Amino acid sequence: MADRSMAAVRKRVVVIGGGFAGMNAAIHMAKLPVDVTLVDRRNHHTFQPLLYQVALAVLSPAEIAQPIRSIMRDHRNIEVLMDEATGFDLAGQRVELKTGAQLEYDYLILATGSTHSYFGRDDWAALAPGLKTIEDAVEIRRRVLLAFELAERQMQEHGTHPPLNFVIVGGGPTGVELAGAISDIARLYMAKDFRHINPATAHVLILEGGDHILAAYPPDLQKKAVEQLQDLGVSVRTGARVTDIQPGYVMISDERLLSAVTLWAAGVQASPLGKALGLPVDRRGCVIVDRFLNPQEHPEIFVCGDLAHVEEDGHQVPGVAQPAMQMGTYAATRIGRLISGERGSDGTGLNEPFHYFDKGDMATIGRKAAIANIKWPFKGHLSGLFAWLTWLFVHIFFLIGFRNRIAVFRQWAWTYLTFSDGARLITGSQELTGWDEEYHAAQNATVGTPVNVTTKTS
Amino acid sequence: MADRSMAAVRKRVVVIGGGFAGMNAAIHMAKLPVDVTLVDRRNHHTFQPLLYQVALAVLSPAEIAQPIRSIMRDHRNIEVLMDEATGFDLAGQRVELKTGAQLEYDYLILATGSTHSYFGRDDWAALAPGLKTIEDAVEIRRRVLLAFELAERQMQEHGTHPPLNFVIVGGGPTGVELAGAISDIARLYMAKDFRHINPATAHVLILEGGDHILAAYPPDLQKKAVEQLQDLGVSVRTGARVTDIQPGYVMISDERLLSAVTLWAAGVQASPLGKALGLPVDRRGCVIVDRFLNPQEHPEIFVCGDLAHVEEDGHQVPGVAQPAMQMGTYAATRIGRLISGERGSDGTGLNEPFHYFDKGDMATIGRKAAIANIKWPFKGHLSGLFAWLTWLFVHIFFLIGFRNRIAVFRQWAWTYLTFSDGARLITGSQELTGWDEEYHAAQNATVGTPVNVTTKTS
Repeated sequence: MADRSMAAVRKRVVVIGGGFAGMNAAIHMAKLPVDVTLVDRRNHHTFQPLLYQVALAVLSPAEIAQPIRSIMRDHRNIEVLMDEATGFDLAGQRVELKTGAQLEYDYLILATGSTHSYFGRDDWAALAPGLKTIEDAVEIRRRVLLAFELAERQMQEHGTHPPLNFVIVGGGPTGVELAGAISDIARLYMAKDFRHINPATAHVLILEGGDHILAAYPPDLQKKAVEQLQDLGVSVRTGARVTDIQPGYVMISDERLLSAVTLWAAGVQASPLGKALGLPVDRRGCVIVDRFLNPQEHPEIFVCGDLAHVEEDGHQVPGVAQPAMQMGTYAATRIGRLISGERGSDGTGLNEPFHYFDKGDMATIGRKAAIANIKWPFKGHLSGLFAWLTWLFVHIFFLIGFRNRIAVFRQWAWTYLTFSDGARLITGSQELTGWDEEYHAAQNATVGTPVNVTTKTS
Repeated sequence: MADRSMAAVRKRVVVIGGGFAGMNAAIHMAKLPVDVTLVDRRNHHTFQPLLYQVALAVLSPAEIAQPIRSIMRDHRNIEVLMDEATGFDLAGQRVELKTGAQLEYDYLILATGSTHSYFGRDDWAALAPGLKTIEDAVEIRRRVLLAFELAERQMQEHGTHPPLNFVIVGGGPTGVELAGAISDIARLYMAKDFRHINPATAHVLILEGGDHILAAYPPDLQKKAVEQLQDLGVSVRTGARVTDIQPGYVMISDERLLSAVTLWAAGVQASPLGKALGLPVDRRGCVIVDRFLNPQEHPEIFVCGDLAHVEEDGHQVPGVAQPAMQMGTYAATRIGRLISGERGSDGTGLNEPFHYFDKGDMATIGRKAAIANIKWPFKGHLSGLFAWLTWLFVHIFFLIGFRNRIAVFRQWAWTYLTFSDGARLITGSQELTGWDEEYHAAQNATVGTPVNVTTKTS
């Protein structure tokens, strides 16, 4: 550690990543005698669990994202730097930034999360977007809404249209939530918008490579989920490994499945900054940390959130919101203890390790059902409408730092009760470009050439 | 007109364009015995007068735009086709569409509006965006917010930053509203967000080529506007013709003005579909129409909105919202009369011409001032807060078809009272790409090379 007088200089903590872990860490250092620099390459924090609501045009981006500066505005010891970390000088205790500048730190909290893994097939990324950012959600929204628009147009202009198939690769909570939401938007929200197609004929299919969807859930809830999905008209195929993704279809071995829109919810990998640290990582790139969330031999570095490989009761802690928030809070608390300890005051609790307090898991299935594996404050398996209400309230009240959680609830309630159009805007390209052109060409092969649209009698 | 039995077949009206004129026309035909096809290349109708609020991150896109299908949902004789008109077969009474299909019509309403004119310098479009669409607004928002972020970062990393200059080319209502809003966001809304820069040092400059800003307003209101802009810290230069626009600066003859963000509010031209009609147009491409809004010798074609060249009391009717709405309504009403006339019922009012009912003009100047030239229900020149309140209520209650006008008002009220972060998201590219890179390079020439950011004492 660089030599400096401890009494004169406040410690500087650098937090890389403005997700759940990084934000919680920073917020919990607001009252500590430290200076915090929070670095993120985006200007906003996104409440990821509700991204699928933006993707299915129920909520707008601004309702689930907030500028990081705004959240930190009143914490004068926290500064926000919009930049991207590219590497580290661990001996010199510096973070290298994309602009060429460097940040010195006394403590480093690395919390850059995870990204999609296409299992080596990165060419699938453009054809099957995943759901991690606002931009992902808006792009999915664009493709899904455009699929209905194109079908309506082709029906008007050609008298026929290709099947409205939506394929979701991956049967975990993200895939299940997306599937239920697409089914909702097709069967309920858009029913009266079209004159030539019936959106309810949209067919949603989840392809899961393993034996069961929602592998992290107990078998009875997995079964309930499949039933509730079927009630929504969503099909589930397990043991189905996607071998190729093309515009307009996916392949399972030599079986071709037509797909108007393909979405990816099948694999994640750690942010590349994990490897850039140069310390041991697991096979997904997550940094191996000890019971204090430090990587080996670096008590001044904390890795939190999806990027950290943490074990609890013999299981790896999952890369979801709850553990990320708890790890961020823990890191901040420990830094506070280390500083107090360094200042010679009572060291009680200094060596308290991190424990993941697992309250359970929840996933929605459409607009009025969900499954919930509750572990606290009681143990129980919930499903159906009651589970959905539980999910609703938990998520609304855990929207961190959001002054507008009431507004989000109101928007939801309105959309739920009125089947309203919500935020069903197609922004960005309305044109057939790139993947759209290939899709359109593939689809055109199944319909006739354009003809005159004659005057219709009513 | 194509030969068909009048008793058996309902007339088909094709409306091209989902702006104020086209939407009003369609809505007013909902109760007529016609079939309407409304064609737009986008899926949503945008309330353009409030686009600048999206550009300055006070409102979200979804609050000022609504899917056309949703607005038309309950009007069963109106179908919406998302496509782009590319040409016409006037003899055959057909519209040619981009997909190759054709639409036959008995009556055609062409209302595709206007687009930006860069006076022959189309290379300026990427460097100085205008404000016509949601995408424009989101791009302007991105550039404005990014300008502050980059300045903060350069201050943190280099110890200095280039001036936060915002240049708006064009002193009409759009330019003035943008200028006032940028000044607001800098001086009021973002004050506490930054640690290293003072956003209030942002300097906004309007460059107007003519002798006065707001040329359509009476001189006393022009003067009030200049005063109110100066109160906001906005400078105005008249007789200033921009001769070149480059990343990082604009040229007025041989005078170079540094500019972090340059916006275009200086010129419009008619949609190219005006010329595509093959009938007489004026020098901006607007179609010359008679007192019934028909181009010469085509009583079955109506041109409405910005695309129409209409004269009233010797002046050309301006390309703003009010005339567009009135023309759309008129065209629908006339079609109703023609159909009734054709059916032999009372022909009273059949030949009533279009008259523009000019109620006046309004433009905001920041968050609590405006100018208003009222012509109905009384004649008066208003300015200051009272004019702003008038502007607020008029615009809220003329949001056509928006169930959420109360929600928009509430959002405004919240943002106004709390200086809140509203929708200050930077979405899309957070990176320096394209024009950003050139700008950054130009700016870097004025600052030093990156240095270590040393640990700061608090």
